[in-house]
Formats: sequence, C-alpha cells, structure tokens
Amino acid sequence: MAKGITKRSVDYSQWYVDLVRKAEMADYSPVRGCMVIKPTGYGVWEKMQQALDRMFKETGHVNAYFPLFVPESFLQKEAEHVEGFAPECAVVTHAGGKKLEENLVIRPTSETIIWSAYKDWISSHRDLPLLINQWANVCRWEMRTRLFLRTTEFLWQEGHTAHATHEEAEEETLRMVRVYQRFAEDFMAMPVYVGRKTESEKFAGALHTYCIEGMMQDGKALQAGTSHNLGQNFAKAFDVKFQDKDGVLKYVHGTSWGVSTRLVGGLIMTHGDDKGLVLPPNMASLPVVFVPIWRGEEQRNAVLDKAREITRDWDPLFYRIDDRDQYKPGYKFAEWELKGIPLRVEIGPRDVENNQVVVARRDTSEKMTLPMEGLREKLETLLDTMQQDLFAAARERMDANTHVVDCYEEYKERVGQGGFYKVFLDVANPEVEARMQEDTKSTVRCIPFDLDEAEKAEEGPCMISGKPCKGRVIAAQSY
Amino acid sequence: MAKGITKRSVDYSQWYVDLVRKAEMADYSPVRGCMVIKPTGYGVWEKMQQALDRMFKETGHVNAYFPLFVPESFLQKEAEHVEGFAPECAVVTHAGGKKLEENLVIRPTSETIIWSAYKDWISSHRDLPLLINQWANVCRWEMRTRLFLRTTEFLWQEGHTAHATHEEAEEETLRMVRVYQRFAEDFMAMPVYVGRKTESEKFAGALHTYCIEGMMQDGKALQAGTSHNLGQNFAKAFDVKFQDKDGVLKYVHGTSWGVSTRLVGGLIMTHGDDKGLVLPPNMASLPVVFVPIWRGEEQRNAVLDKAREITRDWDPLFYRIDDRDQYKPGYKFAEWELKGIPLRVEIGPRDVENNQVVVARRDTSEKMTLPMEGLREKLETLLDTMQQDLFAAARERMDANTHVVDCYEEYKERVGQGGFYKVFLDVANPEVEARMQEDTKSTVRCIPFDLDEAEKAEEGPCMISGKPCKGRVIAAQSY
Repeated sequence: MAKGITKRSVDYSQWYVDLVRKAEMADYSPVRGCMVIKPTGYGVWEKMQQALDRMFKETGHVNAYFPLFVPESFLQKEAEHVEGFAPECAVVTHAGGKKLEENLVIRPTSETIIWSAYKDWISSHRDLPLLINQWANVCRWEMRTRLFLRTTEFLWQEGHTAHATHEEAEEETLRMVRVYQRFAEDFMAMPVYVGRKTESEKFAGALHTYCIEGMMQDGKALQAGTSHNLGQNFAKAFDVKFQDKDGVLKYVHGTSWGVSTRLVGGLIMTHGDDKGLVLPPNMASLPVVFVPIWRGEEQRNAVLDKAREITRDWDPLFYRIDDRDQYKPGYKFAEWELKGIPLRVEIGPRDVENNQVVVARRDTSEKMTLPMEGLREKLETLLDTMQQDLFAAARERMDANTHVVDCYEEYKERVGQGGFYKVFLDVANPEVEARMQEDTKSTVRCIPFDLDEAEKAEEGPCMISGKPCKGRVIAAQSY
Repeated sequence: MAKGITKRSVDYSQWYVDLVRKAEMADYSPVRGCMVIKPTGYGVWEKMQQALDRMFKETGHVNAYFPLFVPESFLQKEAEHVEGFAPECAVVTHAGGKKLEENLVIRPTSETIIWSAYKDWISSHRDLPLLINQWANVCRWEMRTRLFLRTTEFLWQEGHTAHATHEEAEEETLRMVRVYQRFAEDFMAMPVYVGRKTESEKFAGALHTYCIEGMMQDGKALQAGTSHNLGQNFAKAFDVKFQDKDGVLKYVHGTSWGVSTRLVGGLIMTHGDDKGLVLPPNMASLPVVFVPIWRGEEQRNAVLDKAREITRDWDPLFYRIDDRDQYKPGYKFAEWELKGIPLRVEIGPRDVENNQVVVARRDTSEKMTLPMEGLREKLETLLDTMQQDLFAAARERMDANTHVVDCYEEYKERVGQGGFYKVFLDVANPEVEARMQEDTKSTVRCIPFDLDEAEKAEEGPCMISGKPCKGRVIAAQSY
C-alpha cells in the first residue's frame, strides 16, 4: 500500500480521493466545485484527446470553435433543453464594467449556440452532412462534486452534426457511440455495455440517447459517453432548413455526442490499485521508466552510461531515465508505481556486467530478467500484452459482476453491494423507474444492444409492476 | 481577384474581413465581440498548437488546466494587475439559480488563480523550477473587435513558471520569447522583431515584458507574442515561498508567456493576397490538392484512377483528390486558392497519356509540368522551397519598410503610411510616449534586441524631447 492512500477494501471512495491527490492528478480549487487538473492527470487527458481526435477525423469530422457565452434567450428556444439545463447554469450579468442588456449563460453544452450558427451555414443539401466537433470547457453548477467524475467546470469534446434525413442522423448517432466503445475498450482497456437510455434518462432535447456504461471496481456504473439523435428539435427551434434535391425546403436532422474529463476518473477506477494509478500502455504518455541502482560515484557513472547507451536511438517520449540523485531507488519505485507508469526497468552494476536488466510490470508486479540486446522490442511486446491483459481482467470482472435477477426483493437486497443487474423492467412507464430509484438509489443504465439471440428473445414480467416485457435492461447504482 | 474579396490596394481592412469570411475561417457570433472559428480557421490554429506544444515540451514544460473562474478578490491581490484587467472583465454573479456570495470573473489571464494554486505546490527548492503551460479560452470585454485580432473571447496558451532565482526566471523569459520567434519565423514564415516593451506597454503586474512584433502587409505592427518576467510580484501577492538550499524561506520568482488565436490573423495579413489565403506549407493541414480534369464518364474514370494510383501509398493527411462531380475545375481552382492550399496538382486525360501532371504554386501562381514518377518527393521539395520563399519575401518586405528617422516632423508625416521606424525616443519618460501616441496613433513596439554593434553604440537626441538616448527603438502604428 502506498503511503497516504486508503486501501480499496477499507473505503473505496476515500481510496479514489487519496489516489487522485497523491498521484498529483487533480485537486480542488478555491472556486467551489472546480478542479485544477495537474500535469499527471492532464497528461492522461491529452492521450485521450489524441486518440479520440484521430478517430473523429477518420470518420470525416473537422474541429471548430463556438463561443463560451450563450444568450439566455437561446437556451429557452428548445423547451425540454432549457428545463434540463437552466437550473445548473452560471450566469454573466455584467461585463466591461456595465450591466448587460441580456444575461449570458456559460455553456452547459453548445447545442443552442451551434444551431444558431448552422442556420447561416446550411441552405442546400450540398451543405450536408455537416460534421463538426469542438474541444471545449463547459460549466454545470453541481451541488455535489467529485474530482473528474462531477465538477462544476469540466473539459470535453462535443460533436454536433447535421444531416438531410432521419436515417443518416441515426446512422451517425450509432457510429459515434461505437467509436466511444472502441476508444474505451482499445485505448482505456475499459469494457463497456453499449445501449439506449430510457426516456427518463435521455438528453434534454433529444429523440433518444445511446451510451456506453463502464463498471468500476466497486461494481458501480459510470456513464462514460453519450450520443444523441436530436431529430429535428434544434433545427425547428433555430429554423434551420435546407433545400433538398427535390427542391423542397426541409428541416435538418441533428446529432450530438460527447465525452469528458470524467473518463480520467473512469480510467482510475477501472485499473487503479492500492499502490496507486495503473495506466494501460495506450494511455501512458510515459510508458517506460529506468531506475538506475548504484552506490558511489563510480557505479553511478557506469550504470547511467549503460542506460543511456541502451536507449540512445529510442524515441524520447517512450522512456525516461530517473537519474535524480536526491532520491533512493525504493522511493523512485513507489513514486512511479503511484503514477501508474506501465514498465519499470531496474539497472544496477551486476546487470551492466551481465548485459541484462530487470523489468517490473505495474499491473501484476511480475519481475523478469531480460537481455539488453533487443530490449526495446521486448518492452513493446510486453506493453501490448499488458494492454490486453488489463482489458481481459476488467472484462472478466464485469462479467462476473453482472447478474440476472428476476425478483425485486432480491434486487433491493443486492444492488447496494455493487454490480450490474439484468432485469425485466417496464421502462415505458417512468413511474416504475422512479420507484426503483427511490427504493434502491439505482437506475436503468441502458437497454443493451449486444445481447445474444436467446437473450433478445427472452420475455418476462417487470420485476416491479409485473407487466410483460421483452428483453432485459441493465440496472445498477452509478456515479 | 476572388469573387467577393475587396482588393488589398482598394481597402486593406475590408480585404481582411472579406477574406476571413469568404475563406470560411471565422465569423462573428450573436454574442457581442465573440467569434465562431470555422473549420478552415481552426485547422490553422490546430497546426499552430501542435508545433508550439512540441516546442514547449522540448523545453521541459508540461500542460495542466486551471479553473475558468477567478474569485474577484484574487484579481485584487496584485495592485497593477487588477488596474490593468478589471475594466475588461466579464462577471458571473449568479449560478445554480442563486446569487453567489462572491462574484466570479471569467479569466482574462490566469496569473492569480494559478499562483493561488502554486502556494500549495511549492514549499522547497526541490519543487523548482515549476514549468507549466495551459491551453485555454480567456475573455476580455473589448469595445472594438476584429476577427482573430481582437475578440471578446479568444483561445490561447499561457505558460506560468516558478523559479528559485531572478536569474533563472529571466533566462526562462528570454528562452520563451525566442521560442515564439522561432515559431513565427520557421512555421508561420513571419519575420519578427524581438525586443523589450517600454514601461507603459508592459504587462500589468510584470517587472518587464519581452515581445515579438510582426509587420503586416499594410506596414502596421502586430504584437504576436509576449513573455513576462513577473519578478516576485505574484509570489508576494499569494504568499508563495520556498525553503532554499541554505535553509532560508524566500519568495519564488515567476514568469508568464502567451500567444493566441490572434496569430491566425497575423498569418492571413502576412501572406494573404487578392485571391485569398496563402498558407505556408508548415501551417497547412492539407498541403496538396489534386484537381482532376475530365469530360464525360470515360475520361473521369481514367483520370481519377490514375490520381488514386499515384497517391496509393501517400499519407492521407498530405493530399486530397477533389472528385466532386457537381463543380467544374475552374470553380475548384478558385476555392482551393481562396483557402490557401499550397500546391494544386492538375491531372487531365493528356497528362495521363504522358505520365505527367501540372503543378501550380499558390504563392507565385507559377505552373510547372512534372513527371508522375517520383512526384511525392518533388512536391515535398517544392513545399520546402515555398516555405523558404514566403519567409524571404516577408523578410524583404519588412526590411524595405523599416526606416531610420530622426526628425519628429518627418515621423509624423510618414508613420500613418505604415512601416516601422527606428527612432531615438526617451522611453524613460512616459509623457514622451503619450505625446507620440496622441499625435500619431503610433506606439513604441519594442526596444529591439538584435541590433548590430554599430546600431547598439549609436547615440542621438530623443526626436520629441531632445534628451540624449543610446540605441533606437522601433515605433509604428499597430493592430
């Protein structure tokens, strides 16, 4: 156990806070609910941005930037939207020393400001599809905050696309939730359930919302990304029409989709352990750290010279040699474990003699002796293995903690202990969901997509109302 | 001349606005003074970010993120700083449906919120130097705005570093202004003067400010980047001390430095012409566009097949084949010229027969016939040449429009026509600068660094007060 980090088995929630602070990922700021993202945490976000940005561009999107400020009247143009977001808004009433004629809201999300621009950008079917993404900060005045998971200001990306038909918008909405799934699984090594949100959980202003849901180590769900089919709601609110090939003026169909710095919290809670952060290699801005071991100046020089010789032609972003004199190797081991660096390479005088090094894996603590020759390739293979192993372990944990339950009494007893529950629930009736939430603090996380044929065909009575249902939903307590 | 773009010779200012809009770089938003950065403009900013971020990391900096909101009381802790920025601030007075206990200012710059965090981060000489950069949006409520050059909200990076000694802080301040110079010259192909700001032009709260100043095509100056030695001002305001090696508690020394989306405006005004934007290859997210030329389906297929064959192994980010059927080649030529794509490759049926293509340079309009074999390498060489030629042309223009003037009457007559003026001016006396500004709307852009020995030794009377001065300053009208 690392110094100052509560064990997960003692208090999972405190473990998370301790880890975030000790690993120097983030801290609260003097502004209520806002966080400072420190370099270790921001480094993870940068890796996420790089991978996602590439995936967005590969699917035909380009980046743009829209104003931070949204006139209050804009927010009010879409009825459900304003109801959902107005209570959480921060409002600018004065600027440049004067009271403003109209208050400006700090964007809680950018649908309204963006669709007001799309009115000028779109007039013909030739302007469609319009595939835009924005990297930005947004603000939602939350009452209860947790570093990364729920903060007043957070960083995110928000895609906002416009299409000629409902079918194309739907295709885009699905494409992007699958991009999020691929990112979560291939880069974060975080398995997810993909599915549709119920009516009461969908985005304010959308026809429907798709999502990815990850399972944290305490068995709670984390909504990790959402993709909304907005239908023509915002096009109608902002009068965005296009002349179709048939000459007819039609309203545009929209989508929006986003992931945020909350993913950093998800990464921590999927892989972290009692020693600190564990970074999947694809999320590590520094994959390998060399810790030289020496006594006295002569050994120091020999060991450092050798480490530099081995790494001479390596990409400087791939490794670092920790040559700090003021710290002992044991201190360095603990520090790099705390920060989750995937591989540690130990090199001492005897290793230099024997042309070998000792490599330690962060996830399994496994140590192995490897020849210096061909070390770079061996480390890369190990990193690949580690990436896959972390995903496999997380997937196994998620599967083992996903339960099929049919009796509401049993559900009420078990759901508080964590885990996902596949249940029959009459999601057409919001009162049923409301009652479940009141009784158990749990919610429907999604109506899952990827069931096998048998599961899809399965029918049964709603565990609360008894009404016949086709197909199970996934319910759990969540962050 | 491109359709809808005023000629530079007719109205330079209108040319700029027309170009920014027609090339779809940016547009005003419904929020006063805020702009929407459209994909073409944002693409340039992304190239700038990539190059700068790499340069910052190569000089040892890491990224972090601090809150958008600054408590009003923080701004007031440094006397000069609040005087400089308070009048331009946007203020959040309400959030989450309630009036706030303390108003929050949208950051106009982040010194105060960052130094309040540094108080917790720094306690020992081991914590120094602290080398942090932030990519963020900031807000200054400007009365007169111009797209990219001066907007209420803009995007920028702000470096904030902390050091043990004055000498180290000074070294950092100089290092970063030289990084900005290198970026401007090597990537933007925009030559700059590097120097120190006068007392009246320095950053509010700094000991002194260094800057790079570019010359736009109308001869006006554009301040393109600044680097401030903050001394111990912010450390004292926020009580940031460290225990030095000698055991004594001392105040930390700080620097800050930044460039913004204003650079996009600088790039346009350095290289743009009457046909539109001209991108130096190092700033082009798309360096090469193929425009196929055909009549009828058969030719279309032959030409497109050949273009795809030539480019089969090329990096997809290097080129695009414009295979849109609804537009004629002439339309496509004009569109890509408007958007500043460095090289256009024309390929028609006769070119396919002769295994050649026609390549047109955006900057010189020069056309040349090149064999298909080895085309990729030839294009890369051409791009290198173009990058150098653009810099050389801009440097020549800057040199030709930098004048040595000693007589104030002559200065008053000439400065309104544009150009930089090397003059003797008693910058120790703010009244002299104030008078010059009142008489001529011009200011001291910098006290330049890179004079030759003869220039450094030169002495003469201040052109306004007659007081003896050593070394000339650069004065000009500016954006």
